[in-house]
Amino acid sequence: MARTGRRPGDPDTRGRILEAARARFAAAGYRGATIRAIAADAGVDPALVHHYFGTKRELFTTVLDFPVDPSTLVPRVTDGPVGQLPERLLRTFLGVWDEPPARDRAVILLRSAVTDPDTARMMREFVLTTLLGPVLAAVETDHADLRAGLVASQLVGLAVARFVLRIEPIASASHDRLVAAYAPTLRRYLTGDVPGT
Amino acid sequence: MARTGRRPGDPDTRGRILEAARARFAAAGYRGATIRAIAADAGVDPALVHHYFGTKRELFTTVLDFPVDPSTLVPRVTDGPVGQLPERLLRTFLGVWDEPPARDRAVILLRSAVTDPDTARMMREFVLTTLLGPVLAAVETDHADLRAGLVASQLVGLAVARFVLRIEPIASASHDRLVAAYAPTLRRYLTGDVPGT
Repeated sequence: MARTGRRPGDPDTRGRILEAARARFAAAGYRGATIRAIAADAGVDPALVHHYFGTKRELFTTVLDFPVDPSTLVPRVTDGPVGQLPERLLRTFLGVWDEPPARDRAVILLRSAVTDPDTARMMREFVLTTLLGPVLAAVETDHADLRAGLVASQLVGLAVARFVLRIEPIASASHDRLVAAYAPTLRRYLTGDVPGT
Repeated sequence: MARTGRRPGDPDTRGRILEAARARFAAAGYRGATIRAIAADAGVDPALVHHYFGTKRELFTTVLDFPVDPSTLVPRVTDGPVGQLPERLLRTFLGVWDEPPARDRAVILLRSAVTDPDTARMMREFVLTTLLGPVLAAVETDHADLRAGLVASQLVGLAVARFVLRIEPIASASHDRLVAAYAPTLRRYLTGDVPGT
């Protein structure tokens, strides 16, 4: 991916950085990829990467064409009483998916994650670390990795059932009905008994 | 898809029937497609379809390259005390997915269902009617459609988390641990309180 010797002012510098970022994120994962390495691959100064794309998280969401800025999502879930956290998590999740332009991009991203191992790896690490990590931290419990995985498995399954497979009545149920159906599941996954081994 | 005027003895008759079946299942769904219509599309007698592929269910599993014969799965779940049905459902599901050749085909089928709306439609109807229908009937409860959808959403999410996204520790957890984690969820979806509307 490295293409050195080109100048930052080059009109496709932005595209070259994106290409380098996609390759790095794919090869090294979200945590392993550094802005420094991406900049080196693109033949530009790290400051230019920040100039074009902001933080590493913002660069990542641009690379994946993430439908929303995840930094706005986490507080919507973690702010408030822990007892109602499962409901807030579901409403935030459904809110992202149910706005048409975001939904289209989310479905594309989901399809890509299911068919492309590189995207799967990036998504997995990003969702678990950046999105569910702070949620689990807010709950302050044991077996955080298992709990995050259980929550992720039900949210992914809900998204696939509602938006991809369109299983009725899940596909057309109101948010209230889905929250009532799924909140007890997420509550147990987050704070209930889960098997230690 | 109809290609009439060719004789049953034609060496690619089998392939022609499969092609007609795939098109019919895609257009009309599992229930809507009839052996008679598939045979007409392929330009053969319905008896020849049965001769090559058995029942409609068997033809469908061949078309989708379904990893196991589903008729063997349902009794493994429904035979036995209803109280342990969620555990049997999970063990049967994990048993299908965890044998390497079947798993590869199941992952391909899942990827196909997530990316191709025709496959999604066929799979949805088949899984809900043929696989989960008898399970819900064994439970004898209200809101069967919602319950089937909730169960499907968690099983699909488990499969995506374990086999496609490979989220740890879900990806490498023992069947016992997964059964302990997910059986209470399926038990509530099958027999607990679910929101009527």
